[in-house]
Amino acid sequence: MREILIVGAGKSTAALIDYLLDRAVEQNLKLKIGDKELENAKNACRDRKHCEAIELDVFNKESREPAIQQADLVISMLPARFHIEVARDCVKYNKHMVTASYISDEMRALDEEVKKKNLVFMNEIGVDPGIDHMSAMQVIDRIRDKGGKILLFESFTGGLVAPESDNNLWNYKFTWNPRNVVVAGQGGVAEFIQEGKYKYIPYHRLFRRTEFLEVEGYGRFEGYANRNSLKYQSVYGLENALTLYRGTIRKVGFSRAWNMFVQLGMTDDSFEMTNSEEMSHRDFINSFLPYSPSDSVELKTRHSLKIDQDDIMWDKLIELDLFNSEKKIGIKNATPAQALQKILMDKWTLAEDDKDMIVMYHKFGYELDGEKKQIDSTMVHIGEDQSRTAMSKTVGLPVAISALMILNGEIKTPGVQLPIRKEVYEPILKELEGHDIIFKEKETEYLGYNPFGEVGN
Amino acid sequence: MREILIVGAGKSTAALIDYLLDRAVEQNLKLKIGDKELENAKNACRDRKHCEAIELDVFNKESREPAIQQADLVISMLPARFHIEVARDCVKYNKHMVTASYISDEMRALDEEVKKKNLVFMNEIGVDPGIDHMSAMQVIDRIRDKGGKILLFESFTGGLVAPESDNNLWNYKFTWNPRNVVVAGQGGVAEFIQEGKYKYIPYHRLFRRTEFLEVEGYGRFEGYANRNSLKYQSVYGLENALTLYRGTIRKVGFSRAWNMFVQLGMTDDSFEMTNSEEMSHRDFINSFLPYSPSDSVELKTRHSLKIDQDDIMWDKLIELDLFNSEKKIGIKNATPAQALQKILMDKWTLAEDDKDMIVMYHKFGYELDGEKKQIDSTMVHIGEDQSRTAMSKTVGLPVAISALMILNGEIKTPGVQLPIRKEVYEPILKELEGHDIIFKEKETEYLGYNPFGEVGN
Repeated sequence: MREILIVGAGKSTAALIDYLLDRAVEQNLKLKIGDKELENAKNACRDRKHCEAIELDVFNKESREPAIQQADLVISMLPARFHIEVARDCVKYNKHMVTASYISDEMRALDEEVKKKNLVFMNEIGVDPGIDHMSAMQVIDRIRDKGGKILLFESFTGGLVAPESDNNLWNYKFTWNPRNVVVAGQGGVAEFIQEGKYKYIPYHRLFRRTEFLEVEGYGRFEGYANRNSLKYQSVYGLENALTLYRGTIRKVGFSRAWNMFVQLGMTDDSFEMTNSEEMSHRDFINSFLPYSPSDSVELKTRHSLKIDQDDIMWDKLIELDLFNSEKKIGIKNATPAQALQKILMDKWTLAEDDKDMIVMYHKFGYELDGEKKQIDSTMVHIGEDQSRTAMSKTVGLPVAISALMILNGEIKTPGVQLPIRKEVYEPILKELEGHDIIFKEKETEYLGYNPFGEVGN
Repeated sequence: MREILIVGAGKSTAALIDYLLDRAVEQNLKLKIGDKELENAKNACRDRKHCEAIELDVFNKESREPAIQQADLVISMLPARFHIEVARDCVKYNKHMVTASYISDEMRALDEEVKKKNLVFMNEIGVDPGIDHMSAMQVIDRIRDKGGKILLFESFTGGLVAPESDNNLWNYKFTWNPRNVVVAGQGGVAEFIQEGKYKYIPYHRLFRRTEFLEVEGYGRFEGYANRNSLKYQSVYGLENALTLYRGTIRKVGFSRAWNMFVQLGMTDDSFEMTNSEEMSHRDFINSFLPYSPSDSVELKTRHSLKIDQDDIMWDKLIELDLFNSEKKIGIKNATPAQALQKILMDKWTLAEDDKDMIVMYHKFGYELDGEKKQIDSTMVHIGEDQSRTAMSKTVGLPVAISALMILNGEIKTPGVQLPIRKEVYEPILKELEGHDIIFKEKETEYLGYNPFGEVGN
């Protein structure tokens, strides 16, 4: 029997656990699910065979160490900042490890030891990061193997509500951690390269510098820039690409509307508001508007944001019940971001039968045999239900598949790593196709952003 | 002989040193000026009697401790974050201390020990903070002594160029640390209270929410909000005031123009730009604009900032030579704020015969005997020349006067403090009048922001 320990039994683990339990007999597996709340772990196991629920507090050595010691491989599904507690024990007790999070500096620092002990620490193997890396590197490697040179790489991912459940004016519901949505884009400028020029977008402009994306069968989307496009230069070996851009996908119009919150200051997470608990929705928005003895909060909002009488932006605010003077924020010492999240969760929470959707869009511009070409690659995956969401499947399946491959010695290059090598992404992408996670490629003319070779700015 | 040690011989020390040396014989004083660069200290002494220049490295115990030990009182004119090194030794060796900076948490933590040793640590006794505290508290105490109740307190200060030297389109030159001007307003939301309502302005809106101020004989100014208005509630005992607002004064139109830099992202100090050293002014602004194969940086700027053809904002940018493709930033790993500062310093540095000006404006709204009234108090002080600037005098004189008063036992309440007690501000304000630092008061009708007692928003 090989034992896999999963630390953290959040809602993203359903597909991960199902995948492994489905193969428990055939693969001789035992699953142990550890969570701070035993109840969560039990709910994840649901009394199934080969699955044991335990209480596990990652900050308590007595609770953490024995569980890790008994396992053959550890999957950490905790929030990213907690992985390191697990990782240090995995090094100590010679266990492989898998996470779906970005490699932190602390994690990277373990690389040498991990290699020395011949362990595999696979990270960034969820959806974004994860499937984005694998699907991008597959095309990039293919182009390179033919002798092609990458000129442009743009990559967008979005967690959205499925078309059949898309019934509000924002065309958006929370399908993942709401907090991440509210503070998205904060904490640093968005940097990218376009036609060799470094470009910077400050946070307060981010949601007004979008570009449109057409996905066959799903219509038009928009993308706003992520903070970290430049780091993919070295990760993907794209030092010579003229254009490098990573972004987040939303339905058209979302960003322009979200920008209203940004402009007012309602997404700020850096200070606590006075009296936030007793504040009504109306008080909340009013605290970002100039004082007036007589003008209404509504008119002040329209004036401040320059919202015309017939602009649908206004209806988006109304839909959120933002001017309600009865509904309280009800959170002590809330930051504006926390208060806004509370207001949005009243409206943007998935209903019982709502489905979510993951959309991914890559553009690869390249030169091959003196000719410039472009491949657009898109993937859309719609969730089955509230537990087998698209998010849970696209995050959990690559984690599960890679964990099993590591146990079976099919991934064996040691070290702290992410899935950008062929031996990793080829079999995983192949298997994901069987789960309806499929990329469609389209060859198109390469235009780039400077098709006539002008000076360019 | 009483010895005063001045640590840090920056350009703000001229008036401070002159004041003390003028009284050296009469008051039996000896001055020691310590600076990391002996040359700076020598330039400050200029071979005058009763003045000794020494090399003093505040981070070197062997250099710092003996100098402090020999003194009777220590004035620290170092950047605010370095005071604590001096302060700890002052406690150790029983020396009084004076600074012109805000009391830091570390400094405040010394209060108990300072009191126990019967020492006076006077802080915030420059111009802002300093003269603002004293002049405000004088009026507030007077109103209270009569039985009045403060309803409104607004206070604005600005370091500007004098009218006779005001010859650029921005009506602004650097009269103090340019860096502080470039990053002003960053690092947190601006909070204040208006008619009992808490109001918040995010940084990217700060320079578009100004209010106008008329100063007799000097015309119209504008004020934008400082970050920290609320802390004056407890410092001045204004817990019941309906309106509390602190701001920075500029000439009309400055803030709207400065907002262009904020909107583009050019004041950001949180990241380093790639290739900043080789970047031209034109490259710099272009890095904040969308890529275009053919459109000019000029048109992209006009479009991005919505600058009409006949808008003077445009001429303000041109005056700064912002589109020059020859002039380099020339600083390695510069943040946008550092690059912008470089560009501005080419244009906004005071010329040899330029004079600076300090403008202060307080509004006090109050209720007395059932009647609502208002006092507006203004102070304008123009510098004499490049060394006896308004800034140097308004910072240095209160520091010098208070230092002498402490030595003479005229200020004797011990502890880490700021000048808000009558025994301190009365004699100092009186003496400042002799140096032409004079507040003019005007009684006016109290309107507040809700003159008709409406519900208010």
